[in-house]
Amino acid sequence: MADNIYISYPPPLTPEQEEYLVQTVKNWTIEHALTVRPSTAIVPKDINPNNVLATNAPVTLFPSPFPKACFEQARSLQKVYNELYATIASDEEWLEDILQELIKVDDFLANLWKIHLSVKEEGYVQDLSLGMFRSDYMLHTPGDSPPSLKQVEFNTISSSFGGLAVKVAKLHTHLATYPSVKRPLAYPSHPLFAHSDQTNSPSPSITTIGHPPPNDAVITLTASLAAAHEAYGPSKSRPQLPTCVIFLVQDDERNVFDQYALSSELWNQHKVPSFRLATSKILALTTIPSKDENPNRPLIYTPPSSPATQYEISVVYFRALYAPAEYDAPTSWAARHHIERSAAVKCPSILLHLSGSKKIQQVLTSLPPDTDHLKNFLPHYPESTLNSLRTTFAPQYSLSSPDPNIEPEGVRLALSPDSAANHVLKPQREGGGNNIYRDKIPSYLQSIPTSQWKQYVLMELIHPPTNAKNTVLRSDGQVVGGNVISELGIFGGCLYRSGNGSKKPEILHNSEGGYLLRTKGKDSDEGGVAAGFSSLDSIILYEDA
Amino acid sequence: MADNIYISYPPPLTPEQEEYLVQTVKNWTIEHALTVRPSTAIVPKDINPNNVLATNAPVTLFPSPFPKACFEQARSLQKVYNELYATIASDEEWLEDILQELIKVDDFLANLWKIHLSVKEEGYVQDLSLGMFRSDYMLHTPGDSPPSLKQVEFNTISSSFGGLAVKVAKLHTHLATYPSVKRPLAYPSHPLFAHSDQTNSPSPSITTIGHPPPNDAVITLTASLAAAHEAYGPSKSRPQLPTCVIFLVQDDERNVFDQYALSSELWNQHKVPSFRLATSKILALTTIPSKDENPNRPLIYTPPSSPATQYEISVVYFRALYAPAEYDAPTSWAARHHIERSAAVKCPSILLHLSGSKKIQQVLTSLPPDTDHLKNFLPHYPESTLNSLRTTFAPQYSLSSPDPNIEPEGVRLALSPDSAANHVLKPQREGGGNNIYRDKIPSYLQSIPTSQWKQYVLMELIHPPTNAKNTVLRSDGQVVGGNVISELGIFGGCLYRSGNGSKKPEILHNSEGGYLLRTKGKDSDEGGVAAGFSSLDSIILYEDA
Repeated sequence: MADNIYISYPPPLTPEQEEYLVQTVKNWTIEHALTVRPSTAIVPKDINPNNVLATNAPVTLFPSPFPKACFEQARSLQKVYNELYATIASDEEWLEDILQELIKVDDFLANLWKIHLSVKEEGYVQDLSLGMFRSDYMLHTPGDSPPSLKQVEFNTISSSFGGLAVKVAKLHTHLATYPSVKRPLAYPSHPLFAHSDQTNSPSPSITTIGHPPPNDAVITLTASLAAAHEAYGPSKSRPQLPTCVIFLVQDDERNVFDQYALSSELWNQHKVPSFRLATSKILALTTIPSKDENPNRPLIYTPPSSPATQYEISVVYFRALYAPAEYDAPTSWAARHHIERSAAVKCPSILLHLSGSKKIQQVLTSLPPDTDHLKNFLPHYPESTLNSLRTTFAPQYSLSSPDPNIEPEGVRLALSPDSAANHVLKPQREGGGNNIYRDKIPSYLQSIPTSQWKQYVLMELIHPPTNAKNTVLRSDGQVVGGNVISELGIFGGCLYRSGNGSKKPEILHNSEGGYLLRTKGKDSDEGGVAAGFSSLDSIILYEDA
Repeated sequence: MADNIYISYPPPLTPEQEEYLVQTVKNWTIEHALTVRPSTAIVPKDINPNNVLATNAPVTLFPSPFPKACFEQARSLQKVYNELYATIASDEEWLEDILQELIKVDDFLANLWKIHLSVKEEGYVQDLSLGMFRSDYMLHTPGDSPPSLKQVEFNTISSSFGGLAVKVAKLHTHLATYPSVKRPLAYPSHPLFAHSDQTNSPSPSITTIGHPPPNDAVITLTASLAAAHEAYGPSKSRPQLPTCVIFLVQDDERNVFDQYALSSELWNQHKVPSFRLATSKILALTTIPSKDENPNRPLIYTPPSSPATQYEISVVYFRALYAPAEYDAPTSWAARHHIERSAAVKCPSILLHLSGSKKIQQVLTSLPPDTDHLKNFLPHYPESTLNSLRTTFAPQYSLSSPDPNIEPEGVRLALSPDSAANHVLKPQREGGGNNIYRDKIPSYLQSIPTSQWKQYVLMELIHPPTNAKNTVLRSDGQVVGGNVISELGIFGGCLYRSGNGSKKPEILHNSEGGYLLRTKGKDSDEGGVAAGFSSLDSIILYEDA
């Protein structure tokens, strides 16, 4: 059924319909700041020397159908996942145990770990951490099975696109309902839209509300930032300073309006001021008083435009410094260390950042008779909840084994052409190298020293619906359509306190709300939203009767 | 005093302050759709073939000081002006009398008049008209006199920038109050901002609220559109059709987001659907049934994207067809005629469009012992109100006289170099030619046949404050500052019914609300918001104690 839904979707457009739809989307996106700064591939630097131009974010013209049961399952698991990762990040011993092998070969993880150890030795002055998470899933539809969710990644740092995703859902809702649900001008009739004539439907058994469900990502994410700001409490400086949130951003960020959606809501709804700080300016514009001056280590921000007006930073929200390539300045690591040792609540702390490593995800998928990590981390949840969560794991296999005499299961599956055909080989190193797919896996492994195999994890391929189609308005205005693959992200926020003599965190705020659908052309196995045919989407839920 | 206020305004910026302020404005404008489509001078067509890019509208970095008493006078007169022009447009005989000479030499006015006569002969089927007005003023500060208002123009068609002006006021308010009124990050301290330390003020006698007053232009304009839609009543078609408002727009409009601010509010607040119709498509996409089919002449719109879903047009809101150059297609005049004869409420009707001619403005300025037109049109207003209105007239003089033996006052003033130095010579022809200033007037008049003199009107020059300064962020991102001249526009809406055997209209809806300040570089005598250094601004009101 998951595939049948796509047979006539999206509905075909006449040239006049496409012109109206595309023109409406072009104007709606600018009117509602569903925008990005254009890349230099779209507008050469000399045409736009002052960087004033904006263009639409790449968006699909239609929402993508998504099974309601899977969406509800993903939502129902989010707060469990939030707590799971807060718990992992609070168990330093476990994390070290899992990551120690990888740290030996991965400079990025090693540097993060070193910062943690250094601050630990000095003594942390902040036991609160904030997670603003996004759990990403694909639909898995092998053979005739009903669709199920498989987790692709759990993001613990810089979970982006919440701001724009809310607007995509509004855009698609506008297109499906203006000027009336019964006869929208932009979309032709189709069973997935509420206005369709059910008696003529090719799939009369499908029920739908005809437009995307509301998307609360901005509300959810902003409320968790506000909660962390509030929990930070009054200024630790003498005399006291006003407090503020810092959005830590890349110097050449193009996705600024996604971030502004959060900072504006933070101000409008919560009256929490926030400022943008580029990573290159961390050490120039923030200071921590010496131990003698103030042992509480408040992180002081001096706005360059108003140096006499200092602020104390309550929360550092990382929208940068998530990938190895960003640590390209001589002071990059010093800047990260500087923030980690401060009193500011970090979103995320180093340990929470590390908890998002692919290696952690792989270890969690191990099932009894191996250690049941899930049960250990979340003992107070009923088995049914943990089982629901387990169904979202795509099987992953290590290529190393604690016992050198036993060939790991992963090695066996990777070297056999038959089983390799259903897997992908992923480097565990963060930001390092490309994935190896299917029949290329055995020969690839044989071309590298076996000592390097432990740097990879073998993951069973997810089988997304094969007939899914959509059409995209790219940021350069080109309209392209075809077969697509989508990834659903669910947003969550979690403020927790670690330490207190327990490995378990004290959860102060745990929330779920909002979603992101990213849809990309099917031809490429890889792809991010930045690639040519990869775009922001929303969902139209359906139920098979 | 009006000049003193500018001595230290706007406050000087350090490079860091300017960088922060400009960057904030660049991002705020895109986030809030204070935007335009860039001209091809900024982005060549081949870089932007699909017309997806947007850029900030040209905006001042600071609001401009404006005397509170003048602003309040302008507001207090708006509803009187609304009624005045509704009354003029309802007095066909008077209009014809005033315009008849001009119609002989001005094809544009002649064609408009011809359409009116033709529809009158056929019989009008709609006695409602809608005015969405903007009365434009400059501050007049001759010598040591206190500042006063002088009307530059009363716009009866396509009064634009209400949508963007609201956003400029919000932008400047944000800059002056974020994160707190006491210490905004974007603006340095200055007596005109509320946070300034009054004891150190160079002008301690000035009182101000520190940021622009709220701007209700979108609310006002949209409410008048909604009132006209409502007054149109139910569909006149059989079977009935859903009704809608049409925004009649230019094919290559760049100021689209100003218009979207109105159409979105019309939908969000009033649930009135509206569609954009380019002038080139009027005859292709709208029809009027034949007399036999339906003598009520409903104007039927067929959306090209959904031809099966027809709408009946309640209101045609002209954001185009105001200037002669726009009537460049063989069918342009036929299209205007087509709309005029329909049952739709026109904003504006032909007679209301004609009432906005410069000639009408000039005639209104005539004072006793000539005919007191004001008193005749507005007999029920107290003399004090009419006098207040009269003070906003800049003296204007005709260069023709009903009595060929008497040299008109205008001719005398224009030919004498001494008096010419205080005047501007304006063509009465709409959209025709440039203004002639000061000492160039006598020689210009002597270079053309005296028979053509009647095509001009001589207007006393307005003396705006000479020290006014501001800084502008242009649409190409360049920041330019210097001496400026500003024009204040006050918005109003008026729905009225003409005919009923009386020359006086029945006023059904009369409202005032919202303002626009347009600020341009002082070097050019001419200029519109499209010119290089001419931009959208807002006001910061002050009172001399």
